[in-house]
Amino acid sequence: MMRLSEDARGVYVIAITPFTDTGALDLEGCDRLVDFYLEAGATGLTVLGMMGEAPKLTVEESRKVVGRILKRVDRRVPVVAGVSAPGFAQIDALTKMVMGDGAAGVMIAPPGSLRTDDQIVGYYTQVAELIGDVPFVLQDFPLATGVQMSVSTIARIVNTLPTCVCLKHEDWPGLAKITALRKEGTLDRRISILCGNGGMFLPEEMERGADGAMTGFAYPEMMATVVEHHAKGDMERARDLFDAYLPLARFEQQPGLGLAIRKYTLAKRGIIASPALRKPGNALDATTRGQVDRLIARQETRLKELN
Amino acid sequence: MMRLSEDARGVYVIAITPFTDTGALDLEGCDRLVDFYLEAGATGLTVLGMMGEAPKLTVEESRKVVGRILKRVDRRVPVVAGVSAPGFAQIDALTKMVMGDGAAGVMIAPPGSLRTDDQIVGYYTQVAELIGDVPFVLQDFPLATGVQMSVSTIARIVNTLPTCVCLKHEDWPGLAKITALRKEGTLDRRISILCGNGGMFLPEEMERGADGAMTGFAYPEMMATVVEHHAKGDMERARDLFDAYLPLARFEQQPGLGLAIRKYTLAKRGIIASPALRKPGNALDATTRGQVDRLIARQETRLKELN
Amino acid sequence: MMRLSEDARGVYVIAITPFTDTGALDLEGCDRLVDFYLEAGATGLTVLGMMGEAPKLTVEESRKVVGRILKRVDRRVPVVAGVSAPGFAQIDALTKMVMGDGAAGVMIAPPGSLRTDDQIVGYYTQVAELIGDVPFVLQDFPLATGVQMSVSTIARIVNTLPTCVCLKHEDWPGLAKITALRKEGTLDRRISILCGNGGMFLPEEMERGADGAMTGFAYPEMMATVVEHHAKGDMERARDLFDAYLPLARFEQQPGLGLAIRKYTLAKRGIIASPALRKPGNALDATTRGQVDRLIARQETRLKELN
Amino acid sequence: MMRLSEDARGVYVIAITPFTDTGALDLEGCDRLVDFYLEAGATGLTVLGMMGEAPKLTVEESRKVVGRILKRVDRRVPVVAGVSAPGFAQIDALTKMVMGDGAAGVMIAPPGSLRTDDQIVGYYTQVAELIGDVPFVLQDFPLATGVQMSVSTIARIVNTLPTCVCLKHEDWPGLAKITALRKEGTLDRRISILCGNGGMFLPEEMERGADGAMTGFAYPEMMATVVEHHAKGDMERARDLFDAYLPLARFEQQPGLGLAIRKYTLAKRGIIASPALRKPGNALDATTRGQVDRLIARQETRLKELN
Repeated sequence: MMRLSEDARGVYVIAITPFTDTGALDLEGCDRLVDFYLEAGATGLTVLGMMGEAPKLTVEESRKVVGRILKRVDRRVPVVAGVSAPGFAQIDALTKMVMGDGAAGVMIAPPGSLRTDDQIVGYYTQVAELIGDVPFVLQDFPLATGVQMSVSTIARIVNTLPTCVCLKHEDWPGLAKITALRKEGTLDRRISILCGNGGMFLPEEMERGADGAMTGFAYPEMMATVVEHHAKGDMERARDLFDAYLPLARFEQQPGLGLAIRKYTLAKRGIIASPALRKPGNALDATTRGQVDRLIARQETRLKELN
Repeated sequence: MMRLSEDARGVYVIAITPFTDTGALDLEGCDRLVDFYLEAGATGLTVLGMMGEAPKLTVEESRKVVGRILKRVDRRVPVVAGVSAPGFAQIDALTKMVMGDGAAGVMIAPPGSLRTDDQIVGYYTQVAELIGDVPFVLQDFPLATGVQMSVSTIARIVNTLPTCVCLKHEDWPGLAKITALRKEGTLDRRISILCGNGGMFLPEEMERGADGAMTGFAYPEMMATVVEHHAKGDMERARDLFDAYLPLARFEQQPGLGLAIRKYTLAKRGIIASPALRKPGNALDATTRGQVDRLIARQETRLKELN
Repeated sequence: MMRLSEDARGVYVIAITPFTDTGALDLEGCDRLVDFYLEAGATGLTVLGMMGEAPKLTVEESRKVVGRILKRVDRRVPVVAGVSAPGFAQIDALTKMVMGDGAAGVMIAPPGSLRTDDQIVGYYTQVAELIGDVPFVLQDFPLATGVQMSVSTIARIVNTLPTCVCLKHEDWPGLAKITALRKEGTLDRRISILCGNGGMFLPEEMERGADGAMTGFAYPEMMATVVEHHAKGDMERARDLFDAYLPLARFEQQPGLGLAIRKYTLAKRGIIASPALRKPGNALDATTRGQVDRLIARQETRLKELN
Repeated sequence: MMRLSEDARGVYVIAITPFTDTGALDLEGCDRLVDFYLEAGATGLTVLGMMGEAPKLTVEESRKVVGRILKRVDRRVPVVAGVSAPGFAQIDALTKMVMGDGAAGVMIAPPGSLRTDDQIVGYYTQVAELIGDVPFVLQDFPLATGVQMSVSTIARIVNTLPTCVCLKHEDWPGLAKITALRKEGTLDRRISILCGNGGMFLPEEMERGADGAMTGFAYPEMMATVVEHHAKGDMERARDLFDAYLPLARFEQQPGLGLAIRKYTLAKRGIIASPALRKPGNALDATTRGQVDRLIARQETRLKELN
């Protein structure tokens, strides 16, 4: 069985959930999406994340989406599933469901009520006990959760909970945190660090010791490229390509609007049939669509110049 | 079929959810709890609320609890169910489930991301459309949700959405809001206003035009008494009795710890078998239990003096 | 020179700032206020606190108020001054000003941006270095600041910063925190713990090892009485008197409205000439004033019954 | 006398405050800074903003900084001063001080406690009355203040308060808000809209009807260039240049770290003598400095290619 481990690297794309124009699940779209992500260079997938509109799915729908994606992936890459929930009973049920279906591990964000270091460590200690030997990703995303984890708090979690194998690093941007975590002596063992924020800081993150990205962007090939060129030691080329994608990446990273832009772009690229978000959610107005179109056109021109 | 309406008054007790010591559902405890609440003077019940640990239940468990409580109530009083959720698909599914099982209406809190008046009105307009002719309670609880609804915002919701029949008023304490809502001309029709905060401001709320309470307290008879004496025009007696319960009510209203105190007291009163909260949740230390015991003893003495 | 120390006990009343109806400083009112607080049993005063409308005063006005109060107190009790500010330059200037005028120490709240234990300890370490040998009160008031300090964080601050001599405990209500801090081994030395929240939990706090209160209430004699009877070992009498004041104390503790109620009551008692708050601030409507009047009348009746 | 008006356009640079390595004010640095900003194309300056470390200055220091900058500007461009404060007495005192010294207007952010539309409109109505005929900038920056202003709320403020002449638009990124405000019928009169966020969305903002920027960036010439080329109708050229600066602009927009990066860059460019922030504040580690250096080098190369 494929299990997430400390060796996770590359690009774990946070998968969107495709809907039809009327908000129904588009399961065939899931298949196309999986193919697209893997062709773009994904080394893993993460499903039921915030940007996957997971909180808008019923439990039955969550199961259908995860099942369909796992089937299409067919063990080619590991699939991580978000299982964050207010209560342990729900986390337990979700974890059993996704692991039973073939997920490689789960991702857990801290509830927004946690504040002190002890509360955070206490929470993850209880969660780790709950899910047993299932490997988990520690999601550090203060902008969304309101919970700030210090380096020493992350170290306490990693050093006492062996099933914590990966940090989804999204402390905006928290570059110094990566450096501190990679410093000898901070952690008892080397875990995987995959970064978020739509890849907006990926070159700088790789230089500081990140293993790749776990985030979404309508052009995941950008992230795969940066990781690949970093591995080859060609950071100048990585930066040239990164810079070509940056104007659009920046536009897609807008809070609130970002997911609608991502889905619009994926629909425009022909990956999904409809750009629709489920309610409550935003649709793009004509002006925004025009601005995205122009950014894509300029990006294509720039990429041609670089090739 | 029993449906919640603008005439709702008295005490809608926010039901706790009883668990065994190991965190399993205690469905027989649900029966005893229903009997206790009705004997204490409840004119309605509200299930799956925040203080019912609803977010810690799986969907299946929620169904079991609601079904059991509805069966035991057996149409003697209306039962409202909380159906707040991040996505409309979940709200829709939950609403269909509880209404199908015999609930009289649903209660919906605003998502914490809403800020402007237009966002709040827009959200409830979409929700009301979603749930069709199901009557709903507008939950106004800024301390927990972070969303503040002005009088004019509540008026816009009430005046445009006929299925909004009741306001659960928990703006701490927002007494002036009740007065403003009851002022002629503010609302196009008179809706029910039931108050929260553990009944801590109930005498003052009744004087300003509230119809009763929709909240929890280990002695719901206190709230029934206040409402009853208010109806009789005997507010001095209402206040005398209220004051006797206040020291304990204050202690139970502590954020974080309150539900543990409530369950401890209900267990001590013999209503539920175990005071256990589901994880993540607090247990009471011995000192706190001792302080609750003393408050209860003093309360009993004081009530005897008053009778 | 009088300096705040670990021995601080009793009631340090958080002084209001009296204004005229038009919002001008009422310096003569400061004199009457000081006399009233000391007669009511205050063992200290705290000025320029949040409930003293300190953020609404200009620097010149702050100086005038502090100077006037210190002069009137005339070394009879220690006076602590709040010096919280966004920048160290301001904290430094304020501290020098109030200590030069004769204050016994300063009180410092954490900036709302602090989250992790390390950030909190780091902040106080820098502040303590800045103010040198001036004794300070650590203000722990999560409801207002958004900053939660764990027991271990407070212990780190106390154990490394000898000028931290007192904790203003206002973690709502955080009774278990007092017990933990008083447990042998938690702190290297015994510091003063004075409690907040308008005295709403004072009997329970004293039982757990608090040294008294540092908070406001229009009847500070209530707090002095509880502390006094606790010292005599007569907690039943302390509770009887506490309970008599509780209905009003509860009403005064309403967020947003509380200070207006306190000032209205103090004006009604003849201590200050005007109940006015400075803008931006709330005034009481007639219904609220009527409800306060009734609570005061009932309180007087109950106190007579007890004497 | 120069007064801010609805015609404000171009780039109002949010001025940093230069300190020496030990945290003292560097008033000569203020002169060089003014010269640099004006040479870079600033059409106005904004002082005492959040990114100017205003909250870390004492009142005396604020006066010195404003006075020095106004003297050096010598009426060549309008200077706006931030006067946000918790109380009206302080806002009043600050406004009188800066206007007396020759400022063209003031900028006022909403206190974080405001939530409902009515509260926001009420606050600005009171503030406008307080400052009389002084023109003011409405600061809309939800990420920092927590206050969200809807289009209709801004319209109510603009349409009833003639002294509101400019909106500092920093709703991240809130592009649709600009479009809505520029739609005929939304506002009774055309006010100036100057955008924030370090210029990260300036091309898209200009296309939607913004008049320019009011924000900071270590290369303010980027913003001046975008505005200038937009005015000439050459948006392609504007975007080419914008894209060249974007990798650094993105890096400088990091919350928490951004100001330290800006000051480091300005020091590296020789504008200010020291990159120091006042305490509490962050310094850059060597790795971050190296990353900034590389971004600057790449930016220079790219700009050469474009010229």
